[in-house]
Amino acid sequence: MTHLNLLVGGPTSEWPNQLTAGKVSGDWIGVDRGTLRLLKMGITPLVAIGDFDSLSADELKLVKSAVSDIRQAVPEKDETDTQLAVTVALHEYQYDRLDIYGATGGRLDHFLANFWMVLEPRYRQYAPQIRFIDKQNTITFFAPGSYEIKKEPDKKYLAFVTLENVGHLTLPDEKYNLKDENVTRPISYASNEFIGDTGHFSFDSGMVAVIQSKD
Amino acid sequence: MTHLNLLVGGPTSEWPNQLTAGKVSGDWIGVDRGTLRLLKMGITPLVAIGDFDSLSADELKLVKSAVSDIRQAVPEKDETDTQLAVTVALHEYQYDRLDIYGATGGRLDHFLANFWMVLEPRYRQYAPQIRFIDKQNTITFFAPGSYEIKKEPDKKYLAFVTLENVGHLTLPDEKYNLKDENVTRPISYASNEFIGDTGHFSFDSGMVAVIQSKD
Repeated sequence: MTHLNLLVGGPTSEWPNQLTAGKVSGDWIGVDRGTLRLLKMGITPLVAIGDFDSLSADELKLVKSAVSDIRQAVPEKDETDTQLAVTVALHEYQYDRLDIYGATGGRLDHFLANFWMVLEPRYRQYAPQIRFIDKQNTITFFAPGSYEIKKEPDKKYLAFVTLENVGHLTLPDEKYNLKDENVTRPISYASNEFIGDTGHFSFDSGMVAVIQSKD
Repeated sequence: MTHLNLLVGGPTSEWPNQLTAGKVSGDWIGVDRGTLRLLKMGITPLVAIGDFDSLSADELKLVKSAVSDIRQAVPEKDETDTQLAVTVALHEYQYDRLDIYGATGGRLDHFLANFWMVLEPRYRQYAPQIRFIDKQNTITFFAPGSYEIKKEPDKKYLAFVTLENVGHLTLPDEKYNLKDENVTRPISYASNEFIGDTGHFSFDSGMVAVIQSKD
């Protein structure tokens, strides 16, 4: 399985250790200040995207001299730089998975815009390919169906998050169970846990995010 | 206007400076580790709530010796300690506003459960009294109506966040405007800004969160 990574400009304090140690494999796209942070780790992203208005003139010069493909976006009210980057990643590159780092912590309006991106018609079909990763959380997205998921070794908690109306949500073999629950508003069923190394769940309409997390 | 504060156990790195400096006025309710943190700042909460399973025996002893009203909750899958605390605050105390600190950062399943709490039937009517405050964000909630809001002096950005279907959302005098927008999914209209010190908005169904934030 091939994957592409995005680094967004959120606080580095939220990065997982693997990223801080420069040990995340795969190609990168840099978003805004994320581009600069990649360059400082010795990683040249395939593309740099953003309005770069948070960079100094010297920092912007460094980005321009190092990255061959720069998309200096004009900020629009309904489109974050992260959304632009996801569009480029999904339409111009062929990868099975898109891992987004740096999108949590800091401004909550940004986090929510990024988190809900998968509900937009243009991104919805790609939701199962998108993951958000930070030092305490991994977020994945699921379209209606039946799934087996694997526990991440370093995570303790498991949450099922209904992003919209969700039909017949069933959690048959986790610590806390649900059977054919019709969920009519966004709910974070938090602090569930795996029994063993895998868990199953199913639902037949709407979208569900799974968050594995640790304290 | 009287207010009551809740301190939840999220990372102290997300606290606003005012809290770190011990300068938030008003009475407190402590949730889980938040109780211990209040005591260490010299603040004795009115009530301590939680399962306290993250505290050591000595820490729990300290809490029990200092706080007269302790509700040692049994954790349930559908109810966070924060929700229990909000219930106690709203039903047993008379305050115009409930300010919640320590509910952001860290585990995202917790943040989302807390953020969406206001959509639960039992809390919905109290939503306009609830605020979430951290070092970069203030979140407030609005029922359908017409409003004038004031810019917080230290914040730059203004976001309108639809938590559910929202009818006729109108932003007449902000940097980016909307007119009679019918929003059919959760959207964070991020990175808007006040023009001047106040802004107006209106909508006629659903619930809207306003987030004032800074980089």
